[in-house]
Amino acid sequence: MSVYLHDIPFDRAVQIFQDRIQESGWGDSKNAESIAVDEKAIGRTLSEAAWAKISSPHYHASAMDGFAVKSELTKSAIPSIPIYLSCPNQADYVDTGDPIPEWSNAVIPIEDVESLDKDGEISINGRKPDRIRIRASVTPWTHIRPMGEDMVATQLVLPEGHILKPYDLGALAASGNNTIIVCPKPRVGIIPTGSELIEVGKKAGHGEIIEFNSLVLAAQINQWGGEAKRYPITADDKNKIQEMVQLAANENDLVLLNAGSSAGSEDFSSEVIEELGEVLVHGIAIRPGHPVILGMIRKNKNHETGKSNEVPIIGVPGYPVSAALTGELIVEPIIAKWLGRNPIETEKIEAFLTKKITSPAGDDDYVRVVAGKVGERMLAAPLPRGAGVISSLSRADGLLKVPGGVQGIEAGEKVIIRLYKQKSDLEKTIFVIGSHDMTLDLLAQALNRYDRRLVSANVGSQGGLIALRRGEAHFAGSHLLDPDTGDFNIRYIREYLPDMRARVVTWAGRSQGLLVKMGNPKGIHSLDDLNRKEVVFINRQRGSGTRVLLDYHLAQLGIIFGSIQGYEEEEFTHLGVAVAVLSGRADCGLGVAAAATALNLDFIPLFDERYDLVIPLHHANSELLKPIFEIIQDPKFKASVGKIKGYDVTNMGQIVGEY
Amino acid sequence: MSVYLHDIPFDRAVQIFQDRIQESGWGDSKNAESIAVDEKAIGRTLSEAAWAKISSPHYHASAMDGFAVKSELTKSAIPSIPIYLSCPNQADYVDTGDPIPEWSNAVIPIEDVESLDKDGEISINGRKPDRIRIRASVTPWTHIRPMGEDMVATQLVLPEGHILKPYDLGALAASGNNTIIVCPKPRVGIIPTGSELIEVGKKAGHGEIIEFNSLVLAAQINQWGGEAKRYPITADDKNKIQEMVQLAANENDLVLLNAGSSAGSEDFSSEVIEELGEVLVHGIAIRPGHPVILGMIRKNKNHETGKSNEVPIIGVPGYPVSAALTGELIVEPIIAKWLGRNPIETEKIEAFLTKKITSPAGDDDYVRVVAGKVGERMLAAPLPRGAGVISSLSRADGLLKVPGGVQGIEAGEKVIIRLYKQKSDLEKTIFVIGSHDMTLDLLAQALNRYDRRLVSANVGSQGGLIALRRGEAHFAGSHLLDPDTGDFNIRYIREYLPDMRARVVTWAGRSQGLLVKMGNPKGIHSLDDLNRKEVVFINRQRGSGTRVLLDYHLAQLGIIFGSIQGYEEEEFTHLGVAVAVLSGRADCGLGVAAAATALNLDFIPLFDERYDLVIPLHHANSELLKPIFEIIQDPKFKASVGKIKGYDVTNMGQIVGEY
Repeated sequence: MSVYLHDIPFDRAVQIFQDRIQESGWGDSKNAESIAVDEKAIGRTLSEAAWAKISSPHYHASAMDGFAVKSELTKSAIPSIPIYLSCPNQADYVDTGDPIPEWSNAVIPIEDVESLDKDGEISINGRKPDRIRIRASVTPWTHIRPMGEDMVATQLVLPEGHILKPYDLGALAASGNNTIIVCPKPRVGIIPTGSELIEVGKKAGHGEIIEFNSLVLAAQINQWGGEAKRYPITADDKNKIQEMVQLAANENDLVLLNAGSSAGSEDFSSEVIEELGEVLVHGIAIRPGHPVILGMIRKNKNHETGKSNEVPIIGVPGYPVSAALTGELIVEPIIAKWLGRNPIETEKIEAFLTKKITSPAGDDDYVRVVAGKVGERMLAAPLPRGAGVISSLSRADGLLKVPGGVQGIEAGEKVIIRLYKQKSDLEKTIFVIGSHDMTLDLLAQALNRYDRRLVSANVGSQGGLIALRRGEAHFAGSHLLDPDTGDFNIRYIREYLPDMRARVVTWAGRSQGLLVKMGNPKGIHSLDDLNRKEVVFINRQRGSGTRVLLDYHLAQLGIIFGSIQGYEEEEFTHLGVAVAVLSGRADCGLGVAAAATALNLDFIPLFDERYDLVIPLHHANSELLKPIFEIIQDPKFKASVGKIKGYDVTNMGQIVGEY
Repeated sequence: MSVYLHDIPFDRAVQIFQDRIQESGWGDSKNAESIAVDEKAIGRTLSEAAWAKISSPHYHASAMDGFAVKSELTKSAIPSIPIYLSCPNQADYVDTGDPIPEWSNAVIPIEDVESLDKDGEISINGRKPDRIRIRASVTPWTHIRPMGEDMVATQLVLPEGHILKPYDLGALAASGNNTIIVCPKPRVGIIPTGSELIEVGKKAGHGEIIEFNSLVLAAQINQWGGEAKRYPITADDKNKIQEMVQLAANENDLVLLNAGSSAGSEDFSSEVIEELGEVLVHGIAIRPGHPVILGMIRKNKNHETGKSNEVPIIGVPGYPVSAALTGELIVEPIIAKWLGRNPIETEKIEAFLTKKITSPAGDDDYVRVVAGKVGERMLAAPLPRGAGVISSLSRADGLLKVPGGVQGIEAGEKVIIRLYKQKSDLEKTIFVIGSHDMTLDLLAQALNRYDRRLVSANVGSQGGLIALRRGEAHFAGSHLLDPDTGDFNIRYIREYLPDMRARVVTWAGRSQGLLVKMGNPKGIHSLDDLNRKEVVFINRQRGSGTRVLLDYHLAQLGIIFGSIQGYEEEEFTHLGVAVAVLSGRADCGLGVAAAATALNLDFIPLFDERYDLVIPLHHANSELLKPIFEIIQDPKFKASVGKIKGYDVTNMGQIVGEY
């Protein structure tokens, strides 16, 4: 059977799906649950409003520890002419919360009362005296919590569709609600399919992929109020998938069939759904995530339960970012519909885009971003956009939607971000940009303890200085060699930041050299070897400090760029270079020793350099960046960087100057 | 032993406590847990950073369904002069995610390829052809996800102290982390004490209080990442409390002793803590909540586990709002400390206060507010402030702190609100102000389905019109009799809102009458009976429609206010009047039939009136209020109001006019 993908606009696709679900009577026959009012109820959705069964308080209660009195009898009391009330018939001791006696209508706090014994002396048993002396009158209902002060019987306590929070338990219990009627959780079956998949915990061989989409989807679903059930991984076998889908449909209220929703050689989802029911939509105009399938399938006869024996099924794309977004955009509203609550709406903010985004016309394009405030401007920096880059979702502060009609957004434009976090969390973001250094991960880790979050973008040393000039980061990492003086960075800072004063602080001395495969099979020992025909090099991008270093030394040696195999291939980080060497894409590349260590490569040291932090003064003096200066002076922290091969922390934290 | 409360400033109290906890080595010896990376890990806090164990992808993977090729061989391909590659040695089919063959360095998507069979015809097995024809070249690494594209081995995945979210599971699994090291949950024992307390689910007799503080605290603690254990209610018996506290200390990492922290006749907390350990602070300068006790107690010898055998204990005040706030302000940071994460910071917004707040100097005063946007202004309306009013926390959108040095805040001043909700939720708030009508609860319930939230403030009909003038509400409820014409509201709207056009829509006709005890024991039949000495009346506040109605008819009858017992006692709602009658505080009051029905009172109908909604035009036409006009026209909804005694919905939804 041939499969065609039609990219239907998102809103229309969802409408078709929701209408069909509505028509089917899905969820109409679900039985509301009565559950106890206790901590396990948190997060459940009320399917019936809760009304007050009793008033709270349900009697007139004393609001203080003191004496209940009849206010009329206290009228004449003044400091110089006290009055006396006999106990317990005119004044009776009550603790806070006690009901007041029927005859009383006010409470005088114990600290405003003199308790007297039979002889008129101060009583040693202040709470059970013979009589009391008071020196001021009280008005009726003073220090009394009248019945119903909090809630009156029959009053609305919580509306239908409300999601229970801790304080609600108090309001429910106080109003005499021991149980509440909640919606049953929708059971969602998740079926991962793919012969190449292995479970988390197993070692992934070549070509094997660790299956984690089902974990992410299950966690999302549970958080939204559903009850996820993960089925075992099913191989790419149409019959096996069909069996598993039927089983999941019988046992659940919603089925997610992960992967196989595209049109590859082993994509059976659409065929399977067609056989068990109906494909409503195949292909939605969103990116990532367009090969989504929306359909309905039938439960087996012996599993029919109520009005409807149909179950919605979603064919979820296999790429992790696509799968997670399908969860957010399509699965969540279905769960909301079942629970009778409104779909979750995330907080939105305005931010300025730091980097141009291009986007194919026609599809809604979802771009993950990190966000933070640099000075007064909220910035949004796009994260890597590959649908396979799950770390981009884990790191993201929010999502930017580029609507179908828009082909791209320029850097500096204002955009709307749907936040994954609280806005206040964004104010803890420190943006570092420029040259990539792996030990900045240690700084990120240390900053976390100070309630700061380091977000880095790798654009090379020169790119970092340019970003500082544009106000797009709090500081930059830089290791730009000045060929004339042999010094680092200062000359470039003067050139790129003529109107900005910046403090330059040494991070570390680093050893740069050639990364080669373990055992150095091609016998590479110096830059001269790049001239050899059988040696494939992997380069760093233009503007990076490492590239400046390379080009300088190549020129010194008189080596022509054109004669180097792979000179045009650029990576953006030391680790990128290391990966290229490890995977055989290249034989060598210039980088730091730490990258070689990380991936078990050999390292041929060639040059020493200074890696500095360049911090505009107005940020250097800010509260936000303060912890950096503490951390960088901490001997323990220095030691943790110093023990990494190729780092010299002798001058770490030293101020080079302000320029 | 005599107990003294010293009100120590909050910051100092917490400092003393935290320092002492630090000193004790509390939590130092806790054993980190290794748990599986699955959906059960959500919400746990990393006690060690997670680093990538493998790269993701861990091999060069095809990003498309297509043919892996060597890019160099495609260089000459152009549309008019295609090139041919033989399969599988020059072009080999790969599915998305498959590793590419060692010799290949690019993938051509299947849709850009012509698959040919031996005879040069289009192959029927497009994925296993004899050779392929291509009409465009590809550059190296096209449609390949290079090894490490997402994460490179050794890279930081998540920092220490991170709280796990669904997407993190993907990043962890993809980077080869099958398990993570998390902090054990702090076990928190909660002991409710008080002889007057009964458990939720039992019927509360006179003087008995339903115990729910432990529920709210337990739910809060679980949400913050702790593991709450509720102990049974302990009577006010010092020995029994002491036993229970020792038991809880042995079994937990933190103990909350609820109530008994004040200085009443049955407040044993401070004595008990003193005997089992040390009271550090007794009394903090916050309201509500000042009788907090902070202390440390010792585990029994046989329960000593590690470095420290001391357990922090918090004497939590008994009033529900105080208890819940103690949770938020004091317990949460202790849990954060244990977990090694930063205390939760709630989102803050600026809003204009709608009502003056007075506050005793010296204490930090925490006021619960509801918040919403009326036009362009974010408003914060204070909720009832009694420490017993738990519904104020359940209803609250946020918390306003009036610092110790400030004695009050005027209406209209800008304040900072710590939000309990998302800011976007506040934009769904509809403020109704003015006269209280119980059937507005039905409107609130109906609006919830439209993702709107109705928040009402009862200030009487005239107060409502004044609030509209000030821009403090979206609409007002009003039933103000015009004595000259017998009509309702219009004359007052002209007077109070001279510069504002408003639409007047009838809500319902209502019957007003006297609420009396069931069986009408005092034989009350008309307003004339208010003249009788033995009849105690309960009044409504000045400016309320009911008060205008009363005063008009009293004047007609020539009854002098001064001769009415209780005329000076004012309630703010119909239900308030009903409660006063039910509890014996008064014999009768003027109100609507529904209030009598709600509390099982008898009702003597006297007058019919019209209750209108007064909606400024700019709100009447807004998207926010649209659902109100739908609901008010819905026959089902009308019927639900109409079946309540004393309501006539014949004209419900009819527009009286625009003024």
